[in-house]
Amino acid sequence: MIRRLVLDVLKPHEPPMVTFSSQLSQLESVSGVTTKLVEMEEDVRTVRVAIEGEDLDLSKIEASIEDLSGSIHSVDEVSCGDRIVDDPWLNRG
Amino acid sequence: MIRRLVLDVLKPHEPPMVTFSSQLSQLESVSGVTTKLVEMEEDVRTVRVAIEGEDLDLSKIEASIEDLSGSIHSVDEVSCGDRIVDDPWLNRG
Amino acid sequence: MIRRLVLDVLKPHEPPMVTFSSQLSQLESVSGVTTKLVEMEEDVRTVRVAIEGEDLDLSKIEASIEDLSGSIHSVDEVSCGDRIVDDPWLNRG
Amino acid sequence: MIRRLVLDVLKPHEPPMVTFSSQLSQLESVSGVTTKLVEMEEDVRTVRVAIEGEDLDLSKIEASIEDLSGSIHSVDEVSCGDRIVDDPWLNRG
Amino acid sequence: MIRRLVLDVLKPHEPPMVTFSSQLSQLESVSGVTTKLVEMEEDVRTVRVAIEGEDLDLSKIEASIEDLSGSIHSVDEVSCGDRIVDDPWLNRG
Amino acid sequence: MIRRLVLDVLKPHEPPMVTFSSQLSQLESVSGVTTKLVEMEEDVRTVRVAIEGEDLDLSKIEASIEDLSGSIHSVDEVSCGDRIVDDPWLNRG
Amino acid sequence: MIRRLVLDVLKPHEPPMVTFSSQLSQLESVSGVTTKLVEMEEDVRTVRVAIEGEDLDLSKIEASIEDLSGSIHSVDEVSCGDRIVDDPWLNRG
Repeated sequence: MIRRLVLDVLKPHEPPMVTFSSQLSQLESVSGVTTKLVEMEEDVRTVRVAIEGEDLDLSKIEASIEDLSGSIHSVDEVSCGDRIVDDPWLNRG
Repeated sequence: MIRRLVLDVLKPHEPPMVTFSSQLSQLESVSGVTTKLVEMEEDVRTVRVAIEGEDLDLSKIEASIEDLSGSIHSVDEVSCGDRIVDDPWLNRG
Repeated sequence: MIRRLVLDVLKPHEPPMVTFSSQLSQLESVSGVTTKLVEMEEDVRTVRVAIEGEDLDLSKIEASIEDLSGSIHSVDEVSCGDRIVDDPWLNRG
Repeated sequence: MIRRLVLDVLKPHEPPMVTFSSQLSQLESVSGVTTKLVEMEEDVRTVRVAIEGEDLDLSKIEASIEDLSGSIHSVDEVSCGDRIVDDPWLNRG
Repeated sequence: MIRRLVLDVLKPHEPPMVTFSSQLSQLESVSGVTTKLVEMEEDVRTVRVAIEGEDLDLSKIEASIEDLSGSIHSVDEVSCGDRIVDDPWLNRG
Repeated sequence: MIRRLVLDVLKPHEPPMVTFSSQLSQLESVSGVTTKLVEMEEDVRTVRVAIEGEDLDLSKIEASIEDLSGSIHSVDEVSCGDRIVDDPWLNRG
Repeated sequence: MIRRLVLDVLKPHEPPMVTFSSQLSQLESVSGVTTKLVEMEEDVRTVRVAIEGEDLDLSKIEASIEDLSGSIHSVDEVSCGDRIVDDPWLNRG
């Protein structure tokens, strides 16, 4: 079971971040979504999307992101199993 | 449901930050607002506005900010769902 | 309701910081005041004043600061609403 | 008894990180797996894999990683005994 | 009421820091004193003295410091009121 | 009574870190062992070994490390007494 | 009453740090001692010794350190009174 995902996502300015996060948060098995703006360029934004839930379904998340005109640049972090294992190491990306 | 928003806002010196935060905090579904001064230039200030609540209404927040002569430069962070997902990654902006 | 204020204040050496903080802390609705010395120049000091309370009254705080020969250079932080929203972002000023 | 392992692993782009972590998390005695992307090169990714459980079996973990086309570059951290001893020292790798 | 004071103090090598702190901690209304060595020069030491209590009396503290051949270079921090307001901002002095 | 030890240890690649930690964790009075890879050179690894227990026996630990072909380069930290005294100061080695 | 002491101590390689800490921890009124290696030179080591207890006796501690061929280079920190006052300021020595 996938408990936590952190995705590096490229998305156009529209739809806005709030719509993006709201839609993802309504997917089944998602408890919460926190999206942070990493970089804003002329036509595209890089956002960092942290998603937590009981048993996340990556294919549905991917579909929803695509549906929102976004694309996953990389999966930066994934936690699976009975609980989320904490690792204080922070990617200095 | 939107639980937490962090906005990068440009606002003139008037109305003052306190009025700005007070008015936003009186919007329905807002539990609290913390505004931090990021930069102070001749006629404009950049402020970072963190808002939390049960089910925030961005359009009302936008309207209130406009009403206060401010404008949202960017949505830096948005948390949706049943709870706020913590992500220690800090934008070094 | 204003819950927390952080003010950047310029004050002369007299009255001393302790008198300054004590007087502010006796204002109605103030629970506590922490004042930190930021910079000490020949005739003036820059101090950072963090004030918390149930329903702070900025005009009374301003009056008290003026009464203590100080002046508010900027309001660096203000928290309003039912609770103080935490935002780990630290102004590197 | 091995309680926690942190592995520096080289893996091809396929299978994806989620499959990688899911499969590892289903091994017996594994409570949770957190995988973080350290570096992404043309054909290979360096990932940091933190695994916790009651009595981890490294040979099974190694086999599973190999089965997933990955290879352990180094064991960066291992905790054994009745409990996990915390050591705030962070490898600046 | 003064709850917490942080003083930048210049003191000669004698009396030693322990006597210095002990004597201050025995003043009425003082709950505890933590003194840290900031700098050691040939005949003088700069120490940072953090004092907490219910209702600190600065004049008595000043007198005691003078009595111990020390002098207050600056009051770096003072907290007054019903409780100590925390402010994570750290003077990089 | 020795409660916590942090050792800087040089060890060959064999036996692997897991065997190293497992064996140490099975010594009497050891509650847990966390070993972190500090540096990997051609034939030798520097590891940082944090050991906690009720009443650690350094001579047995030394013997066990020798038995595992390792050698203690330095004792970086040792905590004795009824409880472990915390000291946030971190060696930047 | 002295509650906490942090000493900068110069000691020869012998006796080893463990003996050093053990002996100090057996002094009356000492609850715990944490010794950290700061620097290792040819014939001498600089160690940072944090001692906590109900009512520490510095003269006995000094005598014990001398007895162990060590010498106190400086008292870096001392906490006195009914409780240990926390001060997050860290000497960057």
